[in-house]
Amino acid sequence: MSAPLVPSPVRIIGTGLIGGSLGLALGHAGVDVQVQDASPGTESLAVELGAGRRPAQDDPDPVLVLVAAPPDISAALVAEALTTWPEAVVADVASVKSTVLDGVRHRVAPQDLERYVGAHPMAGREVSGIISATGDLFVARPFLVVPHPGTLEDATAMLRALALEVGSLPLVMDAAAHDLAVAHVSHVPQVVASLLGASLLEAPETALELSGQGLRDTSRIAASDPRLWVEILGANARAVGPVLAGIRSRLDGIIASLDSLVPEDEGLPGDHGERRPLAQLIDDGNRGVRRIPGKHGGAADSFATIVVHVPDRPGELGRLLTEIGEIGVNLEDVRMDHSLGQRVGLAQVAVERAREDGLIEALRARGWSVVDA
Amino acid sequence: MSAPLVPSPVRIIGTGLIGGSLGLALGHAGVDVQVQDASPGTESLAVELGAGRRPAQDDPDPVLVLVAAPPDISAALVAEALTTWPEAVVADVASVKSTVLDGVRHRVAPQDLERYVGAHPMAGREVSGIISATGDLFVARPFLVVPHPGTLEDATAMLRALALEVGSLPLVMDAAAHDLAVAHVSHVPQVVASLLGASLLEAPETALELSGQGLRDTSRIAASDPRLWVEILGANARAVGPVLAGIRSRLDGIIASLDSLVPEDEGLPGDHGERRPLAQLIDDGNRGVRRIPGKHGGAADSFATIVVHVPDRPGELGRLLTEIGEIGVNLEDVRMDHSLGQRVGLAQVAVERAREDGLIEALRARGWSVVDA
Repeated sequence: MSAPLVPSPVRIIGTGLIGGSLGLALGHAGVDVQVQDASPGTESLAVELGAGRRPAQDDPDPVLVLVAAPPDISAALVAEALTTWPEAVVADVASVKSTVLDGVRHRVAPQDLERYVGAHPMAGREVSGIISATGDLFVARPFLVVPHPGTLEDATAMLRALALEVGSLPLVMDAAAHDLAVAHVSHVPQVVASLLGASLLEAPETALELSGQGLRDTSRIAASDPRLWVEILGANARAVGPVLAGIRSRLDGIIASLDSLVPEDEGLPGDHGERRPLAQLIDDGNRGVRRIPGKHGGAADSFATIVVHVPDRPGELGRLLTEIGEIGVNLEDVRMDHSLGQRVGLAQVAVERAREDGLIEALRARGWSVVDA
Repeated sequence: MSAPLVPSPVRIIGTGLIGGSLGLALGHAGVDVQVQDASPGTESLAVELGAGRRPAQDDPDPVLVLVAAPPDISAALVAEALTTWPEAVVADVASVKSTVLDGVRHRVAPQDLERYVGAHPMAGREVSGIISATGDLFVARPFLVVPHPGTLEDATAMLRALALEVGSLPLVMDAAAHDLAVAHVSHVPQVVASLLGASLLEAPETALELSGQGLRDTSRIAASDPRLWVEILGANARAVGPVLAGIRSRLDGIIASLDSLVPEDEGLPGDHGERRPLAQLIDDGNRGVRRIPGKHGGAADSFATIVVHVPDRPGELGRLLTEIGEIGVNLEDVRMDHSLGQRVGLAQVAVERAREDGLIEALRARGWSVVDA
């Protein structure tokens, strides 16, 4: 095993999903990991699962302290660690950074603040707790390193090394840029999906039977954990609020436009009203989503999606994708679209646009029913 | 071939994606299909592609007329057909029904209105035009049959037969119920996704590099066709507006809550403000999405999702899914989650909850890296 990129020992405070997974990943890399948790039971389980060892009385001080606690108590724990270990670099991994930085700044002396650097490993998961921890949680994910203007360069470098050690892609940005970025790509989408999900509470039962992939995709993340999200949204109120205000302002225009288009009782529909805000909405939406990078940094629309009928039996989808592999085409994305209790599914297969026609021909030659012409 | 369920001849007016696909499906079933389109070029292409034949001078009158035109001209074409063929059942396939019904009612005598019935084959596609038409477009999709109080029973029965003939699942409901249902499951999700997509126009470039599956899923349908959606939203303004008004009212509460949580310049964050609207939003969103039926009518949360590392080479995903088939487990859903240019992907595989543990064990025994513990 090559020497670890991160010096030992590392102290992890809080052994939930993120802290436990960091411990497992660092342990695999040969780092000496000490773990502690406010809950003795959780701490024992973390030790048992291999996330680290309990610190001993005569242990050397940690070189790096990682606070992996809920956002609302992270600042206090960081401040305590900076004071307890006057040489250590201290980082927290909360998913909002400005409020933690403000809280630390209020609690410690400027010379201690130099050793603080924020971090945010973006391993979004729908599970939580040490029991779900895994050493490869961060593989191929962005790992944001968030120094403040006074952070020592060595501290930033140590966090970048940590990101690489756990298999992530380190990106350095300041707290305000971080919080605005996650507002756009994570927190606002959560609010929007939850608003849509909540609107379904008023939908008639028969309406929901017509649910298709569009509704499912748009509302999927509405299933997220309320306790966690109240903390995240509250902690990032400064960045999330203005983006939502922009959405509300546009929504006002859409509702007014729709009002103007409702036909009068005795009038013919469609001969009045203001359609321009609707067109602008859909067009701006088109342009906005085109800004989302595709896989491998390519533009999302460089891929073509073909739709194939797949009998709903074990192995059929696997057979399809194996044959696509045999044909020599790499899959960019795949998803199944099932409808209303039928024993047939539609596989949506995304491939490079240049390979689309050849793949359709080859699949048809093998007897598959391809929907797209 | 068994006798068709739908009598001949059928006249299709408008040979775009839906009209052309109906022609192909009915032709396959042995129905005599006549096609006409306002564009001579489109009509010729439809004939060439096998969607039907050009009607001849001495042809018998159609027994069933299907108007497959944009929503804003459907009512006029239906009224014309009811007058031209005084024995025929006439249906339109526009995706909004009340405005078409109102338009027809204003244009024809009550005894002609009896032969009109609305229809809505729900084959959502991201392509359009006769060139994308396919005879299996409607297989396993809902096909809504929308009679008005005066519709003849035979006319409703004929449309149900049409739905079955093209492989769909017929559901009968009135126009108001239809329009409210599609507002909830299709039109409001479109507006919400477009609002989110449009908000990305203001996001910094670096933010978009952090885009994950949550943002991608929530905004996916924002890529839809503006011209089509302006018509659909405009035509269903009466049903869409109130649902959006409910969303706006809740959004107002969220923005006020976030405002109350923004820390003062000199204050510690998190010690004031109103969090309850945030908790209520996420919780209601949880409960709303749980109302969406899962595949085969089961509840969506009866499935477990496991996450497997898949090397990004042709055939690897296929190999995984083939092995899942060999293990004897049926896939409920699968999707790939790629991150930031890495040559590894995470496959999210949904299976029946009862099969989850056995599958994880069997995959690990075969050497796969499963992320969930």
